[in-house]
Amino acid sequence: MIVKHDMNYLTVLNSAINHKLAPPLAVLRRQQFLIRVLGVGGENRMQGSKFEADSDNILRAITPVLDPNRHKGQAGKVAVIGGCREYTGAPYFAAISALKIGADLSHVFCTKDAAPVIKSYSPELIVHPVLEESYSVGDRDKDHISRRVVAEVDKWMERFDCLVVGPGLGRDPFLLDCVSEIIKQARQSNVPVIIDGDGLFLVTNNLGLVSGYPLAILTPNVNEYKRLVQKVLNCEVNDQDAHGQLLSLAKQIGGVTILRKGKCDLISDGEIVKSVSSHGSPRRCGGQGDILSGSVAVFLSWARQLILADEGNLIISPKNPTMLGCIAGSALLRKAASLAFEDRKRSTLTTDIIECLGRSLEDICPAC
Amino acid sequence: MIVKHDMNYLTVLNSAINHKLAPPLAVLRRQQFLIRVLGVGGENRMQGSKFEADSDNILRAITPVLDPNRHKGQAGKVAVIGGCREYTGAPYFAAISALKIGADLSHVFCTKDAAPVIKSYSPELIVHPVLEESYSVGDRDKDHISRRVVAEVDKWMERFDCLVVGPGLGRDPFLLDCVSEIIKQARQSNVPVIIDGDGLFLVTNNLGLVSGYPLAILTPNVNEYKRLVQKVLNCEVNDQDAHGQLLSLAKQIGGVTILRKGKCDLISDGEIVKSVSSHGSPRRCGGQGDILSGSVAVFLSWARQLILADEGNLIISPKNPTMLGCIAGSALLRKAASLAFEDRKRSTLTTDIIECLGRSLEDICPAC
Repeated sequence: MIVKHDMNYLTVLNSAINHKLAPPLAVLRRQQFLIRVLGVGGENRMQGSKFEADSDNILRAITPVLDPNRHKGQAGKVAVIGGCREYTGAPYFAAISALKIGADLSHVFCTKDAAPVIKSYSPELIVHPVLEESYSVGDRDKDHISRRVVAEVDKWMERFDCLVVGPGLGRDPFLLDCVSEIIKQARQSNVPVIIDGDGLFLVTNNLGLVSGYPLAILTPNVNEYKRLVQKVLNCEVNDQDAHGQLLSLAKQIGGVTILRKGKCDLISDGEIVKSVSSHGSPRRCGGQGDILSGSVAVFLSWARQLILADEGNLIISPKNPTMLGCIAGSALLRKAASLAFEDRKRSTLTTDIIECLGRSLEDICPAC
Repeated sequence: MIVKHDMNYLTVLNSAINHKLAPPLAVLRRQQFLIRVLGVGGENRMQGSKFEADSDNILRAITPVLDPNRHKGQAGKVAVIGGCREYTGAPYFAAISALKIGADLSHVFCTKDAAPVIKSYSPELIVHPVLEESYSVGDRDKDHISRRVVAEVDKWMERFDCLVVGPGLGRDPFLLDCVSEIIKQARQSNVPVIIDGDGLFLVTNNLGLVSGYPLAILTPNVNEYKRLVQKVLNCEVNDQDAHGQLLSLAKQIGGVTILRKGKCDLISDGEIVKSVSSHGSPRRCGGQGDILSGSVAVFLSWARQLILADEGNLIISPKNPTMLGCIAGSALLRKAASLAFEDRKRSTLTTDIIECLGRSLEDICPAC
């Protein structure tokens, strides 16, 4: 339908140009905008049609039916590891997005400085002030404090359906060392881990943390992806074979799932590649990646619950819960971003997009 | 009327199935949802009809008429004991809910770390940073500090109509020791006490704190109820005789009132059992229990005022103010939750439900 619309629109546009009608500036800008958003004639469109995931149906299939017999926690408990002296918005965005999509409980593990601020953004989050940065830790205390930090998170680990590691984490070496241990604990407990932001800086420099862990998801943006490709494949990003390169990269890191964010989101677990290019917004305000990581955490948890309880009825494809989580999370964010942009245009902020998560989910998958 | 609706709906559903009509996925999901919400064929429904409280009439009977001659404080002064380094949302939810229903003053007694955060959620609350956790108290100072903490709360005790103990309290041993003393003081002053969350952890391990106190209310969720049954009755939860078991439990703890939260709320003071199953929502986001404890605090205060001033005109049943408070609080939360869900669906959060408390109360019991 969009293609048809494109063609009609292009016909009118060409006709106007041929007849040397001069459309007013606002109309021209609107034309340019539509051509960019719809990607008319671009190669991404061609790629999209071949690899495009059936994202709305996947989202509907993995979102659980709301059941009054269920109790608190059964619709998902997620935790975000992030938030330091400098960054407090990112972990909030990730954690609140998880709740707005339907998780029952959302925790944040951050530094002591960050905690009161993150708490003050919303009383809905459970915020643990347990991480430490180098400036507050003497050399002699490092081992002892590191053990305490890791134990503080680990005592909760079994209760979580998914961990998001990285939003607003910062790059303090002591803090990152502790977070490495937390990732190892999550892996031991078989808890899925989504790595974003500064978590990707950590993991790119220490691939062993996630390599071969099928419940790990990396969500790099353009620069983070470039570093990952250089480090793992020892070459530059090749956009002529974007799908093949992503597949190789995911395979090379032992079958982790990678969601490469962009105009069209590409997702691979080293076995298959899928793209999500529906909706979206041209606004690139910071924080949208945090919504994505929080969203993927919830959908991955639901997909995994569904697969673990599978009674042979799972008719969707792909079957990998990390792929399903990424596809659904990407589709929902893109829809929410487009709704927010429709309303707010250039002034769209991340909080506006978060406010559209509920309506977007309801549009695709009505609660009842 | 609901039963009639169920039967019609089921007839249509069966007819569709018999005629091998294949309803689309959205219709099937709607069917599953309605069957769950309406509890068609479930035994809870049968139980509900026999024990169902006349909750709307009770709520109307105990809610005081707004009278311009009354002064600040006469519509209720409640206090929440809770809020620590980890948890700040829960005490806020309980305290603000009390105000939103109509209490005049709402206090929170919490730790020093939690106070600025809880204050930042709302300027409406009076927040006292008086509790202490072990990490900030040396062994030598424990007795002295404990006495100071208890005295700080006790000097306010006579002014309160009701105490809510537990939302976001945490489980620090020193803090819980102080709270045990606060419960004893409240009991000495004949101030009603509602025990929720970590307060239930404390009380389940030390039943003497509330045993035989007719102004105590416990509000356990599914897990807290399980622990209470195991500890007191030395057996497992028996859902075949949910009413009988709850009655025994309340009687065994010397006639305290227990509100067992669930798809259908069950309430007993060891003499009678009542259920509230009207409205409700299938969303199980954390924090709804805190709204309930704050709501019960206000309705209990009002019911008690009414009974203390009774001139033989109280025509409602039951007569016990703790039962009346629980029934009205449960009914109001369930209505607010259903209104919020109608609007927000899966993205409903606890703050959305709090925003619906006023409208729900107005629907049942118009202010004028």
